Amino acid sequence: MLRALSASLRTLPRRPLTATPARLHTSQPAMAAFQQDPHDLLVIPGPIEVANSVLYANAHPSMSHVSKDFVPVFGDSIRMTREVLYAGETTQPFLISGSGTLGWDQVAANLVEDGEEALVLHSGYFADSFADCLQTYRAKVTQVKAPIGRAVTVAQLEEALLQKQKEGGSYKVVTFTHVDTSTGVLSNAKEIAQTVRRISPSSLIIADCVCSVASEEIRFDEWDLDVVMTASQKGLGTPPGLSILLASARAIDVYKSRKTPPSSYYGSWTKWLPIMKAYEAGNPAYFATPPVNLIYAYNASLKLITEVNWPSEVVVSLEERFRLHKEASAKIRAAAAELGLKQLPLDEAEAANGMTALYYPEGLGSADILPRLSQRGIVVAGGLHAECKDKYFRIGHMGLSVVDTERADVDRVIKSLKEVVAEARAEKTT
Amino acid sequence: MLRALSASLRTLPRRPLTATPARLHTSQPAMAAFQQDPHDLLVIPGPIEVANSVLYANAHPSMSHVSKDFVPVFGDSIRMTREVLYAGETTQPFLISGSGTLGWDQVAANLVEDGEEALVLHSGYFADSFADCLQTYRAKVTQVKAPIGRAVTVAQLEEALLQKQKEGGSYKVVTFTHVDTSTGVLSNAKEIAQTVRRISPSSLIIADCVCSVASEEIRFDEWDLDVVMTASQKGLGTPPGLSILLASARAIDVYKSRKTPPSSYYGSWTKWLPIMKAYEAGNPAYFATPPVNLIYAYNASLKLITEVNWPSEVVVSLEERFRLHKEASAKIRAAAAELGLKQLPLDEAEAANGMTALYYPEGLGSADILPRLSQRGIVVAGGLHAECKDKYFRIGHMGLSVVDTERADVDRVIKSLKEVVAEARAEKTT
Repeated sequence: MLRALSASLRTLPRRPLTATPARLHTSQPAMAAFQQDPHDLLVIPGPIEVANSVLYANAHPSMSHVSKDFVPVFGDSIRMTREVLYAGETTQPFLISGSGTLGWDQVAANLVEDGEEALVLHSGYFADSFADCLQTYRAKVTQVKAPIGRAVTVAQLEEALLQKQKEGGSYKVVTFTHVDTSTGVLSNAKEIAQTVRRISPSSLIIADCVCSVASEEIRFDEWDLDVVMTASQKGLGTPPGLSILLASARAIDVYKSRKTPPSSYYGSWTKWLPIMKAYEAGNPAYFATPPVNLIYAYNASLKLITEVNWPSEVVVSLEERFRLHKEASAKIRAAAAELGLKQLPLDEAEAANGMTALYYPEGLGSADILPRLSQRGIVVAGGLHAECKDKYFRIGHMGLSVVDTERADVDRVIKSLKEVVAEARAEKTT
Repeated sequence: MLRALSASLRTLPRRPLTATPARLHTSQPAMAAFQQDPHDLLVIPGPIEVANSVLYANAHPSMSHVSKDFVPVFGDSIRMTREVLYAGETTQPFLISGSGTLGWDQVAANLVEDGEEALVLHSGYFADSFADCLQTYRAKVTQVKAPIGRAVTVAQLEEALLQKQKEGGSYKVVTFTHVDTSTGVLSNAKEIAQTVRRISPSSLIIADCVCSVASEEIRFDEWDLDVVMTASQKGLGTPPGLSILLASARAIDVYKSRKTPPSSYYGSWTKWLPIMKAYEAGNPAYFATPPVNLIYAYNASLKLITEVNWPSEVVVSLEERFRLHKEASAKIRAAAAELGLKQLPLDEAEAANGMTALYYPEGLGSADILPRLSQRGIVVAGGLHAECKDKYFRIGHMGLSVVDTERADVDRVIKSLKEVVAEARAEKTT
C-alpha cells in the first residue's frame, strides 16, 4: 500500500527547480456571451481582428495594479510570453505600456553606450527608424542595405562583420527586422543569428519581431537570440498599447555591466527589471502604473495561443498556428499571382507568413482597389516604404483570421480581391 | 424676407477662425446595455472606477489606426483634452501610448538640454522621480523640499529663484507636483506659476498633474502654465495606458529652438508633433501605432466630462465636477477627524480634493484596517512615501465615485471606515 502510494507520487509532475512559480493561468471572469459590435474585416498588418474574449478582458472592471487579483495575471502574462517564443526561464520578458517603438528605445538605451557601434540590417522602412533610435541614444550606426523586396544576405552580413573585425572593433549589437511591415520581407532569423555568433560572438543579436511574433516561428533559445521585441496588436491579437520585449541572460549581463546608466528613463531596465521580477514572483511593485486592462486582454490572448485546453474560442498548438499562417500566406500569394499581381518580396523564401505586400495591377492604383475592398467591408493597408509607397498595398493575415478557419476570412479576402481587380480592369478598358 | 434670412444667418454660430476643425464629437456605437462585471469598489488614487460606456469603448472592435472612422476620434480627444484644462487652441496636447511617467521623459528630453538647470519643487515621492528623470537626460537638478505633509512655500520658491539670479543663471524649467499621490498634498499651481513668471520669466512652468487633472481645477491659459502632464487612469476615468501632456506655445517654441535634438526617441516631440497636428486636422499619420481601443475609451471618458448633453450616464459641468470633488474631500476629512485619524497634509488648504492620505489610528496598522475594508468590498491603497510608507493609507475619490452621487460611493467608504476602525479598536482593547 505504501509502495503503491509512493510509486504513484513519483508519477506526479515535479515542481520546477527554479525559484519562479509555475504558470498560474488564473481564470478570467465568466464571459457573459460578450459579442463585439459588427464591423469591417480588419486585415491590415496590425492591429488585427481581436477575439471576443480578449475584448471582453479589455473591458474588465477597473482594478488596482497592486491587487492580489491582478498580480498573477501579470505574472502569467510574463510566463506565457516566454512560451510563445520557446524561451526558457533565464529569458527576461518586459511588458511595458507603450507601442512597439518603445522596444527600440529599450535596446538603444540599455544595451548600447555612447559611441558604441551598432550594425543594422536593412530590409525596409523599419530599419531606418531603428537606426534613428540608436543614434538618438548616441550609438554609431552602420547599415547594410538590401534592395527593396529582399533581405540582407548572409554574404553581406559576413562581409560587414569581417570588415569591422579587420578594423579591430566589434559591433555591440546587430539588429534585423524579422518581418519588415513595410515590405512583407521575412529575414532568416536563425541564419542571421548563427552568422553573427560565428564571426562576432560578443555582439548581441537583436530581432525586431514586431510583425512576426506568433505568426512566424521564433525559437528564442535554440536560435540563440538576445533580444526579441514586439507589440501587442499584431500576431498576438491584443489591442495596441503594450511593448513586449524578451532579453537573454547574456543581454541582461551586458546591461548590468554598463559603465554608464541607461540613457532613457521610461525605457530603463534599472527601473523595470525589479518590477518584472516582482510581478512574476507574485508580488506587486511600482515604477509606473501598468496598463491593467490591456494586461488582462493580453493574458486572454496568450491563453488562446498557448493553452490548448482553454474552454473558449479556437485554440490550436503553436506548431499548428505557424503551419496555418504558412498556408494562408501561400493561398493569398497564389491568388495574387493568378490575378497577375506582383508581390514586393522578390524571393518566395523571404515572403512573410503573416502579411503580404502586393503591387497594384498594371494600370491600376490605390483609388481603384482600396475603396472597392472597403465597399465590401474589407480593410487593407496602403504602402509604407518611402520609395514606392503609392505603388502597393498590404494585406495582413495573422491570428484569429488565420487560426479560426471557420471564419474563412482569408477566402473572403481572396474572393473580394478577385472581384475588385476584375471590376477595376473592366472600368479601365471601357 | 431676405432681411429676415440674413438676420437669422447672423445668429448662426461662426466657424472658428483657426485652421483647426471644430470638435466633431463623433458618436460611439450604441452601447448595447453593456454592464461591467460585479467587482469591489476601487477607491485608490488611480486607477479609479470606470464608467460602463468607457469600458465598452475599450472593447471596441479592432480598428485601423489610420481609418477614417478612427481619425476623428483621435482628433476630438485632442480637442476635448484642451477643454478639460481650459486651454486654448495654441496649446498642443500630446496623447501617447505609455504611463504617466512618460510625461517626465517628454519634459526632460524635449525642453531641457545637456547641463541646463531644472528646479524641482518637492512635496513628496514623485518629485524625486521627476528629478531622477531629468538627470537621466543630463539636466542639472536643484530640489527645494517641503517637509512631509506640506507643499513648497512661495517664500522658498522665491528664495531659490533669486539665488539662481544672483549666480547669474536661470532655471530652464521649474517643476512641481500639483497633487503628490504619495501624500495627498496639493500645491497652489496658480501661485507657483505667478511667482516663477514674476521672478524668472524665461523659466518654463511644468506642472505634474498626474493625480489632479479633472479632479482639481486647472486653468492652463489663465494661470500661464507651460506644461501640464497627466495619465488616463486618474481623474480622467479611463483605463491606464495613455500619457497625456499639454504644452504651451511658449514651450513648443523653446523645444523648436533647441540646439541639440531631443534626447529621447520614443518621447521625442520631433516625432510626435506632426502626428498630433495631422490627427487633429483630420488626417492620419504614422510614427508608432496609437493605442486605438484606449483612445476610444478616453474619448468616451472625455465626453462624460465635457459634453453636458451626452445622452448616457452622468455628466456634470466642469465647474460642478470640481465642486463635487471638494465636497467629497471635505466629507471624508471630516469623518476621519471625527474618528481621530490624522491626515498627512498639515494645512487644510493643501489637502487634495481627489484623494486623502490618512495615518492609521493610534495603535493600529495596515493589517488592522486594509483587510477589513477589503472584506467589505472596498479597495484602498497603502502608503507610498519612503519615509512613512507603513504608517498611512490612501483613499481615492475621483471621477465617477464623486460625480455620480447616486452611487453614494463616498458615503459607503465613510461608513465602512467607521465600522472598521471601531472593530479594530475593539479587538485591540479586548
